[in-house]
Amino acid sequence: MKDETGSGKKDTLAAISETLQGDQYARFVGIRIVRIEKGYAQTELTVVDHMLNFNNVAHGGVIFSLADVAFAAACNSYNQTSVALSFHIVYRKPIKLGTRLVAEAKEESAGKNTSLYTIAVKTDEGRLVALCEGLAYKLQSKVVDIDNDGPEAI
Amino acid sequence: MKDETGSGKKDTLAAISETLQGDQYARFVGIRIVRIEKGYAQTELTVVDHMLNFNNVAHGGVIFSLADVAFAAACNSYNQTSVALSFHIVYRKPIKLGTRLVAEAKEESAGKNTSLYTIAVKTDEGRLVALCEGLAYKLQSKVVDIDNDGPEAI
Amino acid sequence: MKDETGSGKKDTLAAISETLQGDQYARFVGIRIVRIEKGYAQTELTVVDHMLNFNNVAHGGVIFSLADVAFAAACNSYNQTSVALSFHIVYRKPIKLGTRLVAEAKEESAGKNTSLYTIAVKTDEGRLVALCEGLAYKLQSKVVDIDNDGPEAI
Amino acid sequence: MKDETGSGKKDTLAAISETLQGDQYARFVGIRIVRIEKGYAQTELTVVDHMLNFNNVAHGGVIFSLADVAFAAACNSYNQTSVALSFHIVYRKPIKLGTRLVAEAKEESAGKNTSLYTIAVKTDEGRLVALCEGLAYKLQSKVVDIDNDGPEAI
Repeated sequence: MKDETGSGKKDTLAAISETLQGDQYARFVGIRIVRIEKGYAQTELTVVDHMLNFNNVAHGGVIFSLADVAFAAACNSYNQTSVALSFHIVYRKPIKLGTRLVAEAKEESAGKNTSLYTIAVKTDEGRLVALCEGLAYKLQSKVVDIDNDGPEAI
Repeated sequence: MKDETGSGKKDTLAAISETLQGDQYARFVGIRIVRIEKGYAQTELTVVDHMLNFNNVAHGGVIFSLADVAFAAACNSYNQTSVALSFHIVYRKPIKLGTRLVAEAKEESAGKNTSLYTIAVKTDEGRLVALCEGLAYKLQSKVVDIDNDGPEAI
Repeated sequence: MKDETGSGKKDTLAAISETLQGDQYARFVGIRIVRIEKGYAQTELTVVDHMLNFNNVAHGGVIFSLADVAFAAACNSYNQTSVALSFHIVYRKPIKLGTRLVAEAKEESAGKNTSLYTIAVKTDEGRLVALCEGLAYKLQSKVVDIDNDGPEAI
Repeated sequence: MKDETGSGKKDTLAAISETLQGDQYARFVGIRIVRIEKGYAQTELTVVDHMLNFNNVAHGGVIFSLADVAFAAACNSYNQTSVALSFHIVYRKPIKLGTRLVAEAKEESAGKNTSLYTIAVKTDEGRLVALCEGLAYKLQSKVVDIDNDGPEAI
């Protein structure tokens, strides 16, 4: 996600992405942000030992966190700081050690003060693991200070 | 949570608790189960660096996970394996580094196949951080193999 | 819910209550607001024919509406117009013709822009029918124009 | 939604549709089921006076009910009686008298015991009014007694 235009400028979406990549909890758990566009983000992880619950399947908190990081990335992509108001998750499938999971957050509706996202978590074979609705509240601060016209996606 | 009755027997709730304490993800994140009764559980954590998001407050995934571990402990307390069907969380307060958080899960209703819990996450000063509803599905397996009449709470 | 103080003044909570009692849909369905306090409201209905679904039990929409009217009454009780952002309902029990249902909405947390309520729907024998979380957004308008210190409850 | 094949047989989906059309509450409120396929349904209404709340916009209970009737129709379309376990709705837009609303329920995932639907409520111009997730529990009874291979959609 480098931006080397040679112009010395870094575009906004690249800067937002860098900020989001610095999320300590996501890094600690092993969640990677693989794509950010305006109103959209994709995250992934591979289930390792420390992500298991006492039943030896992926912990609900891990699946939630993968979805939540995608949601946060997507709703902060417009460079207006957004925080989660509420999140609803329905689990559909237990997940074993070694599985690669992908979450996609998509903006369904953006208002003046709030925005609504759906987040689908799937195996890399496309089977639905969890389906979520996230509601975000828009604060008056920016995610990053620069603001220029970068590419629509990173 | 030791059970030393001198009888050589370990009661069911103590055994369930031991199993739940073995949850790898909860241990990895730093979530402790501090109390389990039938239909009730309490968890806690203190917010450290690896729990922060890119805004330097506790990550939504951490707050969710604290609630989710309490929910799992409470709904598995009857020694019938229960898994999360759905979870709804509303966030009320950003949380800073160093804060101690406590989650309490309480059974609101238990049916034949499903059970319903509310989970409140609070600061140790009692301020509401998040309020959740968790719906669990009961499987036909036991959490632990022994089953005898232990104490009602651990 | 009359207010006869002889002073010619009508207090705010009584006026809010009158406004809410005018809700056309609640009247049409047969939902009554029986109590409003600041941050609290109680509604009731008795299940009649037009409230049944195709399985001849109370329709999910009726149970939701009973809860929603309680939520609206409670979150508008401070005379700041509040609208529903989101609502989560878990159903626990099918309800037959003739049953009297009561919903209670309680404020769990009030912030500057949003407030959170839990709403429990029960039979008049106290059995849980549905449990809900409602999130409200506060607008800048008043429910009623007068504003004086009336009683804390109506 | 007539089925006149001349064979004297009525297909299952037509019979389910007839049963669902008999829903007393939907008829009472003014909600019409306009399409049922396996795992899919569409409902509509036009906002009239008795659907308004005290703010003179469409009541949250009406919008919910429109979505809930679509959900019920979709999840009962396989001729296995299904009941709502939980429902989550996020409201995005106040709706005025006279507006025509359409709800579409789509199956996202079907398991052995539960199934998951998303339900979108829109104006007839396609603007999002509410977005919902509904979780259904499958009972062991049939919606209608006949069972033969009718058309895939009605």
